[in-house]
Amino acid sequence: MSNPYLVNPGRRRALAVGGGFAALAGLPGAVLADGVRQDPPAKAAAGGGKALPEYAAWKDADAMVVHSANTIELRREDFGHSTITPSNRLYVRNNLNPPSADIVKDPDAWSLEVSGVARPGSLTVADLKRLGLTAVTMVLQCSGNGRAWFPHKPSGTQWTVGAAGCVVFAGVPVKDVVKALGGVAGGMKYMTSTGGEILPEGVDPNTVRVERSVPVEAMEDAVLAWELNGAALPLAHGGPLRLIVPGYMGVNNIKYIRHLAFTAEQSPAKIQQSSYRFYPVGEKGSDKYPSIWEMPVNSWITSPYEPGKPQPAGRVVLSGVAMGGFHALKEVEVSLDGGQTWKAADSFGPDMGRYAWRTFALAVDLKPGKYQIATRATNDKGDAQPKERQDNNRGYNNNSWLDHSIELEVV
Amino acid sequence: MSNPYLVNPGRRRALAVGGGFAALAGLPGAVLADGVRQDPPAKAAAGGGKALPEYAAWKDADAMVVHSANTIELRREDFGHSTITPSNRLYVRNNLNPPSADIVKDPDAWSLEVSGVARPGSLTVADLKRLGLTAVTMVLQCSGNGRAWFPHKPSGTQWTVGAAGCVVFAGVPVKDVVKALGGVAGGMKYMTSTGGEILPEGVDPNTVRVERSVPVEAMEDAVLAWELNGAALPLAHGGPLRLIVPGYMGVNNIKYIRHLAFTAEQSPAKIQQSSYRFYPVGEKGSDKYPSIWEMPVNSWITSPYEPGKPQPAGRVVLSGVAMGGFHALKEVEVSLDGGQTWKAADSFGPDMGRYAWRTFALAVDLKPGKYQIATRATNDKGDAQPKERQDNNRGYNNNSWLDHSIELEVV
Repeated sequence: MSNPYLVNPGRRRALAVGGGFAALAGLPGAVLADGVRQDPPAKAAAGGGKALPEYAAWKDADAMVVHSANTIELRREDFGHSTITPSNRLYVRNNLNPPSADIVKDPDAWSLEVSGVARPGSLTVADLKRLGLTAVTMVLQCSGNGRAWFPHKPSGTQWTVGAAGCVVFAGVPVKDVVKALGGVAGGMKYMTSTGGEILPEGVDPNTVRVERSVPVEAMEDAVLAWELNGAALPLAHGGPLRLIVPGYMGVNNIKYIRHLAFTAEQSPAKIQQSSYRFYPVGEKGSDKYPSIWEMPVNSWITSPYEPGKPQPAGRVVLSGVAMGGFHALKEVEVSLDGGQTWKAADSFGPDMGRYAWRTFALAVDLKPGKYQIATRATNDKGDAQPKERQDNNRGYNNNSWLDHSIELEVV
Repeated sequence: MSNPYLVNPGRRRALAVGGGFAALAGLPGAVLADGVRQDPPAKAAAGGGKALPEYAAWKDADAMVVHSANTIELRREDFGHSTITPSNRLYVRNNLNPPSADIVKDPDAWSLEVSGVARPGSLTVADLKRLGLTAVTMVLQCSGNGRAWFPHKPSGTQWTVGAAGCVVFAGVPVKDVVKALGGVAGGMKYMTSTGGEILPEGVDPNTVRVERSVPVEAMEDAVLAWELNGAALPLAHGGPLRLIVPGYMGVNNIKYIRHLAFTAEQSPAKIQQSSYRFYPVGEKGSDKYPSIWEMPVNSWITSPYEPGKPQPAGRVVLSGVAMGGFHALKEVEVSLDGGQTWKAADSFGPDMGRYAWRTFALAVDLKPGKYQIATRATNDKGDAQPKERQDNNRGYNNNSWLDHSIELEVV
């Protein structure tokens, strides 16, 4: 049987990298985590934009902005009003290139190692399916969503709002797996997971490995998922098996997970120790700064959103999405005047729980003129979106209501 | 501008019909409502099954059973566990062929006539979008779902469980539209809607028109929807605009709606007067029998479901979907012994409200042997699924728990 970790030789591409990474030949395209360098541009599409990469060719091309082969976001005007983001409109962000698509051909055969429990061992997805079943609706969001608005131009993808979606993951609760293996071993403070990406040879694995630790308490709501929105989890989103940590930023939801470990310390990987840390502009990341874990409260208008096209005067229904982040959403307000005055908006559609976002709407009567439409969400903990983003070197966690506001011209 | 009702001449096919319908030439494929004759078979696929018709070519072919070009169901093993049915796995059932795909090219331009209100008039979808916005999660289900189990072999598609899905529709509440037009006119007892299908010439339109009436009270939760599961409503599901009547059988959710009327009487169309009526085997349908309106309580196992493949002994997680029908779901029980004993199952995943179904699971420890796995749902009104189907000539509303049970061999 072929090794699922081996990249299809026919798809290997020459690397054009600076620095000391000439030894990485054999790895297709971008391989380094967290902005060490940009992904190679995807092939230009006929219309001038970039084409979807093959592993994500099933995405709705018209609704997506392809930044690179590993960074694809949803257009603001294509979020819809149905709470759930269709899988073919869910953003893609990979720290390393995905493994071969061979790994999703027989999902049940995928094997997961579990350690830091009373009885460590290996379980296939088929084994996991016999332990338990749950589903969680949650916002999946890249830590750098909204990065485009930071004035210091942080390195990394210049996402606006589209590196986020609200989706349903189904799989087995992590706590059911832990229970079947005798419980978490003593002294373990973190849940540490390792992705199934192919690592380059000749470099210290810790500099490239996709391995993240979250506080062990996160296991309470965590899921080992094999299903996304009712169908088998696609490779582009971490199939055959992904760790889902509801309420935590995207990077913590490890794709093609091959090792789930309960550990006393956080992972020594660079992506844990110094990348994905919240630290001042101009500084170097390190473990003295907070890790990018819990999502903040956030919201944005999604319709009407037709830049450059004025709306006719009269009644307009403003609508968008609002999330409480790690805590449940409490309320969302809308301003027509750039934050001078606010009105409460109504949530509509299904309430899918603490980790989901909600769609909201406010019908207003607009006279001709220019409006700056802002939205401000507040969660159950009392956190409200701030006016200004909180500057940080890598441009993470932007939930500024001012940055997310839009201009609307009415004629 | 081309007439969106005109069928693309290049796609017209000769009709091979018996009876007095030779005059229907010019209409592609099946045109007659409710079992007057079967749809023509779709082109055979390479693997021996039937191919998806062009308007539904975007469906997940591996998950669907194509009965004909206008009748396509989801395989029992492909329901998933995420509550929401992905759009590309939602069943298709058309009473007439869909209009040209041209009608979904500019959805905002579609025009709806509204009558039986204080100020009748026409509204485009663009107009409707300025009146209000909501979303509803609901089971959409064909009246004939489960027909395959009726022993008298009713005419019509032999659906098993797959002519049903749980999806999110977004659009404007009908009551917002009615309010904007001054309210329902006096004496109106029904909400009557007309589909935008092309009618054949030379026959009484009432014999073929897709026009259904529901009690006027149904407008309280009804939606004029332009969005399905977060994307523009596709032609295959009634785009650009469909009337959604939550809790009512599929036939009442009129596709490509072009006329919404509040009326004193039910529609004179055959599909209202004599078809889609619940009447004894061997009788003729007429308005003296109940119309197929409210959905009954129902449930079925969806996994494990691998006919002919025994399951290994030990712990197995049984899972399925359960709906309350017109009323909210209260509970669902599972039997391993063909209904002799029952155990309560746990619902999991998001509760999306009265009209949605819920996923449920029960973990059991199974010794080698043969099991007859049945499920029985009960709704808030106190209705429970009966053991036996209620016979009726056309094979509607089958919610027998015995019919929906499966055999499971454990080794």
